Amino acid sequence: MKLVIGNRSYSSWSLRGWLAARQSGLAFETQVVPLYGENWDAVKGAIPELAPSAGKVPVLWHGDGVVWDSLAILEYLADKVGRDRYWPKQDDARALARAMVSEMHSSFGALRSELPFNLRMEPVAKPLNDSVRADVERILTLWAQARARFGQGGPFLFGTFSAADIFFAPVVVRFRQYGVPVPGFAAAYMDAIWEHEWLEAWRAAAADESWSIPHFDAAADV
Amino acid sequence: MKLVIGNRSYSSWSLRGWLAARQSGLAFETQVVPLYGENWDAVKGAIPELAPSAGKVPVLWHGDGVVWDSLAILEYLADKVGRDRYWPKQDDARALARAMVSEMHSSFGALRSELPFNLRMEPVAKPLNDSVRADVERILTLWAQARARFGQGGPFLFGTFSAADIFFAPVVVRFRQYGVPVPGFAAAYMDAIWEHEWLEAWRAAAADESWSIPHFDAAADV
Repeated sequence: MKLVIGNRSYSSWSLRGWLAARQSGLAFETQVVPLYGENWDAVKGAIPELAPSAGKVPVLWHGDGVVWDSLAILEYLADKVGRDRYWPKQDDARALARAMVSEMHSSFGALRSELPFNLRMEPVAKPLNDSVRADVERILTLWAQARARFGQGGPFLFGTFSAADIFFAPVVVRFRQYGVPVPGFAAAYMDAIWEHEWLEAWRAAAADESWSIPHFDAAADV
Repeated sequence: MKLVIGNRSYSSWSLRGWLAARQSGLAFETQVVPLYGENWDAVKGAIPELAPSAGKVPVLWHGDGVVWDSLAILEYLADKVGRDRYWPKQDDARALARAMVSEMHSSFGALRSELPFNLRMEPVAKPLNDSVRADVERILTLWAQARARFGQGGPFLFGTFSAADIFFAPVVVRFRQYGVPVPGFAAAYMDAIWEHEWLEAWRAAAADESWSIPHFDAAADV
């Protein structure tokens, strides 16, 4: 099994795909394709591992299956190793988890564009406009619901680490890097995510990446 | 089981949720909540069936579960009645189907904003800007892949009617209503969707809805 991802420092969707692959328990190899360089649009079509996804990462190659999009990758792997590795078992908890994950998958555009995912920067408090503030409020409401109703078994949204945490982990990074003010329950949750061993491994690998915006040499790196 | 949807004439996500509910084979009741009226922002918070979704439709109520977002609803129901009702069985086909559906779920913003879903209008050929044209090209590429590789068993994307058709059915409506030029294989697929009995039932119910933009009386209709 092979997972193609972008720069760990900047690609939030790659982090989701990688966490989904880790959660499967299956062995996999990771191939990093540098994104965001000036030549990216020109070269991405030439990378065979990205062909079916039209250049978007992450992409999972597994036997006969080629899947792109982090949510599709997660569900494809859940088919393989069992849904219970990813989703809460109770109907009411799973319903909320699925809805939260889907909302994260298709929404929060203001947050995503105004607070770009970046593990290279020094944390800085950034003033939030109304659209970002509305996204933050909505996310905190969802986190509060999950933690209050289903979080008894551990520090994560539904107690143990689940698909919901995989999807909101990049939000934790953004909130932290841009100093978004959060209530205590959310700060505790964010610490649990930040210190999770997989996040630590991802951050360490990101710090080791030899290139960062705007350095990019398509011919040398791809 | 109860599904809360918006106006059938204008709510493409409601159509997806409703098709997903039909595909489950489970009995369900449909509750229509008028959208798009001037008072919508004010009243949506007061509709208890929409509370967990912050006013977005569709919302599924099923036993202990409350799920919003059409993809979450589909996967929640697939958990209940079996994945094979929604997704192709072969790994390679299912991988493509999941990736296409996820891409539809999070992308094609230009198509969605420039060619709004509307079953009340007379079909009209609309000139497409470059962004919309790129979305159309990408969708046709995905359809072509699915039909060529996995479409042997029937007229739908993966042969028999699947989650992929549920997600692209509203695109068929848009292509048709705005006269988007398509190659022959796509025209044949679009006819199969348009004439599917569930689409016919949806269109008939949409035509029977007594209100349309901009008529809306929150007090009377909700």
